[in-house]
Amino acid sequence: MAKGTLLYAQSGGVTAVINATASGVIAQARARKVKVLAARNGILGALREDLVDTGLESAAAIAALAHTPGGAFGSCRYKLGPLDRDRARYERLLDVFRAHDVRWFLYNGGNDSADTAWKVSQLAAEFGYPLSCIGVPKTIDNDLAVTDNSPGFGSAAKYTAVSVREAALDVQAMAETSTRVFVYEAMGRHAGWLAAAAGLAGQSPDQAPQVILFPERAYDEAAFLARVDKVVKKVGWCVVVASEGIRDKDGRFVADAGGGTDAFGHTQLGGVAAQLAARVKDTLGYKVHWTVPDYLQRSARHVASRTDWEQALAVGKAAVEYALKDMNAVMPAIVRTSAAPYRWKIEPAPLHKVANHEKTMPAGFIRKDGFGITAKARDYLQPLIRGEAPLPWDRDGLPRYVTLKNVAVKKKLPRWEG
Amino acid sequence: MAKGTLLYAQSGGVTAVINATASGVIAQARARKVKVLAARNGILGALREDLVDTGLESAAAIAALAHTPGGAFGSCRYKLGPLDRDRARYERLLDVFRAHDVRWFLYNGGNDSADTAWKVSQLAAEFGYPLSCIGVPKTIDNDLAVTDNSPGFGSAAKYTAVSVREAALDVQAMAETSTRVFVYEAMGRHAGWLAAAAGLAGQSPDQAPQVILFPERAYDEAAFLARVDKVVKKVGWCVVVASEGIRDKDGRFVADAGGGTDAFGHTQLGGVAAQLAARVKDTLGYKVHWTVPDYLQRSARHVASRTDWEQALAVGKAAVEYALKDMNAVMPAIVRTSAAPYRWKIEPAPLHKVANHEKTMPAGFIRKDGFGITAKARDYLQPLIRGEAPLPWDRDGLPRYVTLKNVAVKKKLPRWEG
Repeated sequence: MAKGTLLYAQSGGVTAVINATASGVIAQARARKVKVLAARNGILGALREDLVDTGLESAAAIAALAHTPGGAFGSCRYKLGPLDRDRARYERLLDVFRAHDVRWFLYNGGNDSADTAWKVSQLAAEFGYPLSCIGVPKTIDNDLAVTDNSPGFGSAAKYTAVSVREAALDVQAMAETSTRVFVYEAMGRHAGWLAAAAGLAGQSPDQAPQVILFPERAYDEAAFLARVDKVVKKVGWCVVVASEGIRDKDGRFVADAGGGTDAFGHTQLGGVAAQLAARVKDTLGYKVHWTVPDYLQRSARHVASRTDWEQALAVGKAAVEYALKDMNAVMPAIVRTSAAPYRWKIEPAPLHKVANHEKTMPAGFIRKDGFGITAKARDYLQPLIRGEAPLPWDRDGLPRYVTLKNVAVKKKLPRWEG
Repeated sequence: MAKGTLLYAQSGGVTAVINATASGVIAQARARKVKVLAARNGILGALREDLVDTGLESAAAIAALAHTPGGAFGSCRYKLGPLDRDRARYERLLDVFRAHDVRWFLYNGGNDSADTAWKVSQLAAEFGYPLSCIGVPKTIDNDLAVTDNSPGFGSAAKYTAVSVREAALDVQAMAETSTRVFVYEAMGRHAGWLAAAAGLAGQSPDQAPQVILFPERAYDEAAFLARVDKVVKKVGWCVVVASEGIRDKDGRFVADAGGGTDAFGHTQLGGVAAQLAARVKDTLGYKVHWTVPDYLQRSARHVASRTDWEQALAVGKAAVEYALKDMNAVMPAIVRTSAAPYRWKIEPAPLHKVANHEKTMPAGFIRKDGFGITAKARDYLQPLIRGEAPLPWDRDGLPRYVTLKNVAVKKKLPRWEG
């Protein structure tokens, strides 16, 4: 065994392949004879000294982890303050690290998590404790800077493109006497990456989705309705994909228009899809159906992308290597070394260039009319959903997902009252 | 070639495997050297003499049809009146049948379609035209009488169980600092079959879905909220699956509570999931997410059930055999010949026993507390989602679905003005 412990934790919204990264981390560390603990519920587990010993999991369980969605160790949404204003928390973190001889800390998450990882990476210099902190990328939103794409996005993108293509076949069959317009709500509050991925379902403007609404463009109701009507009149039916985060020219979220509270003060949880569907129905008179896949789009491991899955594994393995080289404040980033044929490699990127930056879609990815993706976007997105990542199925017809034992490590410190 | 033409049509909501039935029909008829025409958009195509010649499709296309979702010939929602009151329509239908030497008519649909098929089957006696009419079962709702289950249901059931299991892993990972309650809206206006299928995702009451709401039970808000709260306090999080058609004790649809129109007279398209989510949030204060898969659940061929797929093919083939034996007013029904191991066969059932009947869930399938399924339900449902039905994927990462040529047959009659 190498001297010291590697601590791994998951943070932010989970994905269909974040556990593949975890599996990559643990397998690689085992190969290098390094002990791996995992924090329960991200940085919270580290603060609480709520750690589990991954050494007690079988090799088969760690292999199965690579095809299990969700976050096997629990995740969290939790932000650390700046070093000078949140000192007590950082000191507690160091106490836990010291108590368990944690020399390497791998934090697996998105923008906010990269920020946390970056702050933790500064502990070494600030407190003189020898720690190597590596951020490990993950997010279905694909909004991480520096890296060509984010692990988790490709699988959600594939789910989106496949679902839209399948649903479109349904709508097409029923259009004459039933539903003419179908609205699909994609995740993405600020960046329309997943909505854009839906564009892969069709090859020409007449194929579904005929209308995509991006948060990068102001929602113009009149233009939207005119476009839907035009498509229905030409094609017979229309599939709309809308980012949950679209806003009108005054910056108001379209989703909020249907929300608020009712006459009894009860919350009305609307959503973009229901809202757009209602406008189409009222204005154009077409029968409408709508879908909000919500968490299904980020947990559907059964339809994961091979590219995404391989990259998720690769960033996990690279992170361990960076750690063992005592690199600090870096993140394994995906670099596209060739567009056609698509090739990629993993390279370290400085964490501070990732933390708190948000990568929206390049303007050149959205068609001039604002309702679809360009060839450039297609070239970028297509390889990310390529390939299947099959999984074992149980005789009962359900995917064979693993539940880890997650045996708690004995606490050595007083309870954290933070 | 045998003398006469077989006419096939699809009706009602389509499924992930109705095209497998179509493929079975065409392949079997080809093997028996019988010509197959298909009506575009169900019975409407027959009335309009809008027919396509399936003989112009390659064997490869017909094979690919077996794994393509949607309805390849178009479907419709259209009801024929009784023979005595809708005589002009039936006479037109006969004119079309005569013009194209249609001796066998196969109508592939659910309850309403079985009614149409039954009415058409009476034409032989009524007008002295030699016609054999066979109803072919299909519906994700599983509410067809006589048959043990309906083709289309098994795949939608598998989609539901897989999606709920996957989403639950997501919720579980995030529960401490984010979403505690997740609401999944399943199709099913009158019968809770799909909601029940979600129950296959878990094995014990603490596993997701911890709460299922069936249309067969009156919705009791206080009991529902108390149950959700109890689950969250015990498990840490809760997954709710609700049938879209649940109603309160006065018969009011829960989905309607959030619908209606807003202050501007605009339609508010609500839904059960959003409504329940809002009540949980307001009353219990938990963060909630919700999903409405809508058409995705009935078009997701990529996660189809092998059992379902095989049965969909089998009813198509059996229907051709019944037709060629000049049987009339029957439907190939699925008979469960053995529970363990699960075995089934196809047998003819009288159409009038299927038409307009609706099979709701047996009372013994719903747990006494009303929030889950019994062992009996599990035994019935489990084999129906068993097995995978893999499909070819293109290099672009999307399923390889076929688009038929659907070459129109030359019209011989004047235009129908019905």
